[in-house]
Amino acid sequence: MKEVLIFGHKNPDTDSITSSLVMENLEKKLGNKNVKAVRLGNVNKETQYVLNYLGIEAPELISSVDDNQEVILVDHNEASQSADNINNAKVLKVIDHHAINFATSTPLYYRAEPVGCTATVLYKMYKENDVEIDKKIASLMLSAIASDTLLLKSPTTTEEDKKVVKKLEEISGLDISVYGLDMLKSGTDISDYTPEQVINIDCKLFEKGNKKFRIAQVNTADLDSIFKNQAYYEKAINDDIKKENLDLYVFAATDIINSNSKIISLGNDAPVVEKAFGVSVDNNTAMLENVVSRKKQILPNILNNLE
Amino acid sequence: MKEVLIFGHKNPDTDSITSSLVMENLEKKLGNKNVKAVRLGNVNKETQYVLNYLGIEAPELISSVDDNQEVILVDHNEASQSADNINNAKVLKVIDHHAINFATSTPLYYRAEPVGCTATVLYKMYKENDVEIDKKIASLMLSAIASDTLLLKSPTTTEEDKKVVKKLEEISGLDISVYGLDMLKSGTDISDYTPEQVINIDCKLFEKGNKKFRIAQVNTADLDSIFKNQAYYEKAINDDIKKENLDLYVFAATDIINSNSKIISLGNDAPVVEKAFGVSVDNNTAMLENVVSRKKQILPNILNNLE
Repeated sequence: MKEVLIFGHKNPDTDSITSSLVMENLEKKLGNKNVKAVRLGNVNKETQYVLNYLGIEAPELISSVDDNQEVILVDHNEASQSADNINNAKVLKVIDHHAINFATSTPLYYRAEPVGCTATVLYKMYKENDVEIDKKIASLMLSAIASDTLLLKSPTTTEEDKKVVKKLEEISGLDISVYGLDMLKSGTDISDYTPEQVINIDCKLFEKGNKKFRIAQVNTADLDSIFKNQAYYEKAINDDIKKENLDLYVFAATDIINSNSKIISLGNDAPVVEKAFGVSVDNNTAMLENVVSRKKQILPNILNNLE
Repeated sequence: MKEVLIFGHKNPDTDSITSSLVMENLEKKLGNKNVKAVRLGNVNKETQYVLNYLGIEAPELISSVDDNQEVILVDHNEASQSADNINNAKVLKVIDHHAINFATSTPLYYRAEPVGCTATVLYKMYKENDVEIDKKIASLMLSAIASDTLLLKSPTTTEEDKKVVKKLEEISGLDISVYGLDMLKSGTDISDYTPEQVINIDCKLFEKGNKKFRIAQVNTADLDSIFKNQAYYEKAINDDIKKENLDLYVFAATDIINSNSKIISLGNDAPVVEKAFGVSVDNNTAMLENVVSRKKQILPNILNNLE
């Protein structure tokens, strides 16, 4: 019998990779042996730090699923973010924490909560099913929450995430503010990346009416190392604007130590960020104090001010 | 502050009415006092039997929701089955057991499981949250499961529904095979209904591509009493097809004693039922042996064969 595949979204982040591994563990503990975590893209440096630290192999890489393949989706639900051919697969379960844009013709198990991380939902599923969480699984979940909530400092963080982190710190023996910061810092190492590669580490396309725009985000512990190369970044961004016919491109370098973001805003609608964030743009850049979340802060403010 | 409204689907069945009352109870027990169960249509006879038996008032009737009204959906998720103007409301939670056709721009609590009844999911939510289930709430949930699973005999019934029923029988002191059968029989009394009224007792609208179709279902202990009036039913159905521009209308009279359904199929796509169920249509009717579930049997077979 073919295995049920478990995977997170394309361009996987730490939550997508670890939650597929955690869900595989939970399913097996519940007696569903025929399941396998896989991934839809390269393991990023932050996630590699987690896997190395715990001595865990990365899940196998796949890009598409066969017709009628049984799958479990974690950390996403939209077909555009999922495996190629997902619309011909059979989705058995979805465990997620994002907005929903999903349709099936048969009932399924769907569990989403408005919390900071998929791992927080998974933690609750272990509890409900009375399944023990071992040290490695707790460490994987802690890593995911540290990553998605930037050490519980992002405005996406909920009280539930905080409670779960306390429990996971006890089981794993890890301190999120120490281990998590090391993990985040590993993810910020862009020394061997070109500006083109950096802006594509975590870049999402959005649309409003007939406007098309991208918001790229990269975490850093050293804003200067990025902005000393501002001219190269602007060239990479302007190339993308031309190629994709974009009205706006916002590149946010998010300082994980000081919890703010310095942005580069380009394109015909670049001035929108002045109104969106109450800042003055100087030399195409602006500092956004206390802004760290694309989902909760950058995107909604741009959407509300783009005309 | 405006109350959060909790409601099931239009043309509410017993699960939709009782689950809105049960969810109101659960939210209040969890400290969310500002919630109110309402309903989107008339209380049917089966549900009235339940409310009378337990001495409970029916929830208030509404038809539409205001812009930005906060709502919790139970027993449905599709906008076409929900309150008018639902697309401008703010959906906080969904508790359901149906296929999903749902989109939001913000994360929310979404809990669906492929079980026979919303009440089974709600039962698990009480357990997870360590909230006590009192006798009335247990009776409401038992009624919903008895209704949705036709006394645990429908193919939609899962092992989880059966386990939950055992627990609910203990708490409520009710025997599903006695109380549930009385309840179902009350629901089959259509002696004072016109055919127009009968087809609207439990009628749902579905869409596939540009096709629009309805599947109506009525439980009966006496198929002949319905089909002796077939001509009147056909007129009522054809009127609805014209009014709503439907491509297909399937009316299923489900024999709760013998566990099969006799259907009337009308509209330009009426012949689809022959392929969908491997039957010959004679005089617009066909007998579907062992078919009692719209969700698990009638709907998926039509969806898979409608082009």
